[in-house]
Amino acid sequence: MARPRPHHDRKHHQHRPHGRRDRRDRAPRPADDVVTLYGWHSVKAALENPARRIRHLWATENAARRLTEEKVPLSVDPEIVRPDTLAARLAPDAVHNGLLAEADPLPAPSMQELADGGLVLVLDQITDPHNVGAIFRSAAAFAASAIITTARHSPEATGALAKAASGALEYVPLITVQNLARALAELKERGFLLVGLDSDGDVDLAGAPLQAPLALVLGAEGKGLRQLTRTTCDHVARLDLPGAIKSLNVSNAAALALYVARSKI
Amino acid sequence: MARPRPHHDRKHHQHRPHGRRDRRDRAPRPADDVVTLYGWHSVKAALENPARRIRHLWATENAARRLTEEKVPLSVDPEIVRPDTLAARLAPDAVHNGLLAEADPLPAPSMQELADGGLVLVLDQITDPHNVGAIFRSAAAFAASAIITTARHSPEATGALAKAASGALEYVPLITVQNLARALAELKERGFLLVGLDSDGDVDLAGAPLQAPLALVLGAEGKGLRQLTRTTCDHVARLDLPGAIKSLNVSNAAALALYVARSKI
Repeated sequence: MARPRPHHDRKHHQHRPHGRRDRRDRAPRPADDVVTLYGWHSVKAALENPARRIRHLWATENAARRLTEEKVPLSVDPEIVRPDTLAARLAPDAVHNGLLAEADPLPAPSMQELADGGLVLVLDQITDPHNVGAIFRSAAAFAASAIITTARHSPEATGALAKAASGALEYVPLITVQNLARALAELKERGFLLVGLDSDGDVDLAGAPLQAPLALVLGAEGKGLRQLTRTTCDHVARLDLPGAIKSLNVSNAAALALYVARSKI
Repeated sequence: MARPRPHHDRKHHQHRPHGRRDRRDRAPRPADDVVTLYGWHSVKAALENPARRIRHLWATENAARRLTEEKVPLSVDPEIVRPDTLAARLAPDAVHNGLLAEADPLPAPSMQELADGGLVLVLDQITDPHNVGAIFRSAAAFAASAIITTARHSPEATGALAKAASGALEYVPLITVQNLARALAELKERGFLLVGLDSDGDVDLAGAPLQAPLALVLGAEGKGLRQLTRTTCDHVARLDLPGAIKSLNVSNAAALALYVARSKI
């Protein structure tokens, strides 16, 4: 089936769609390496991404009709099911909007494939899938060109993370590395300014000397940036907060940092 | 036991601690109206809030020692338990940091008790407890004086919401109303500028004429602001996003709106 270009507004989109290389370049994945996608935005964006291979699609009658109405390209025929069949396959609080898909993971690009320039996010062992998903969504909203994270201590790009990303997994390449300090050093060599975020940073991010290409580095909730991550950064910046609580949820901090960065670079 | 003042930095804190009125003013609550609090920040802030009656406190040995070291006032003796005892009482992904408490809900203030001036958040049927909790945390971080929400279609201030709020429930009064449009009309009469947030708003929030007192009105994910809410607002503003995805997670949008508002009022 012909796969039309995704419908999303890409006019300000600063990276090429990722993972569109020939699939034969890659070693075959194990059969159980499957991604679960649910919710309207997550599944629609996956169907619209030619690089995402959908293995199976379940849809309620209403959702299937809406896919047709909105001319979403279907690489597989949906299996029509009742809403409670979907609910039974998901966590009790999962909002599926009548859509569930099983898919292959996207090919993971390497550091060498990262485009020069722009704005990237680096996540240092952020483990909560809702937070990482929301960070993906904000990264796509603020036209970040990649998210870089460690292979270990990071959640898989599936399920609740994919739902919270609201389709952003299809737009923002996820680069996983074995050694974050080495990846940061590589970014620095390539001219990126490395700015870590931490509530006890030396400078308010709004007053920091930001410039592109820029890597914003975020640490885990509670633990913050690891020592080696922190010392590798060019600056460690804080977000000044006037109220009684002096730190934000990490995805909220990421959104704010992206906003401040985009206003200055 | 004497209850010292909370240790939080309150120097910029623009509302008085809430709920400190005489408990006898209120009708007794049903016995099952209990709030579950877990995690270091949530439980510590609750213990430090003289208006919060703790019914029972469970702590691991390490967490109990840390409470003592940090001179957190204990109105009840902690029952020392093993971490897996706490884990067994909570959802599988709950991070308890060795602390769990059962407490009374805080007395809910009425619209009449809302202080004049400042910045308030109005939530129009936002139902996800993680999002509402993160919004509480940002509201406390940006010194909002209250959160106003509907009694129906809003999650209870307990459990995962309280955990995501990271102690902010103790700082930001939650005003629940039966009729949101009426509450908005009352805010308007009292001089508040009402600014709704919506991705198809007429004006970018950063360019909107903001002034204190200000009420920022946020709608549910997916559905957005209800029609009556929208028409009651003085302005409906959007957050301009340069990327492929044109809306943020609602708690991220709230953090950004609070940041923009605080930079202008």
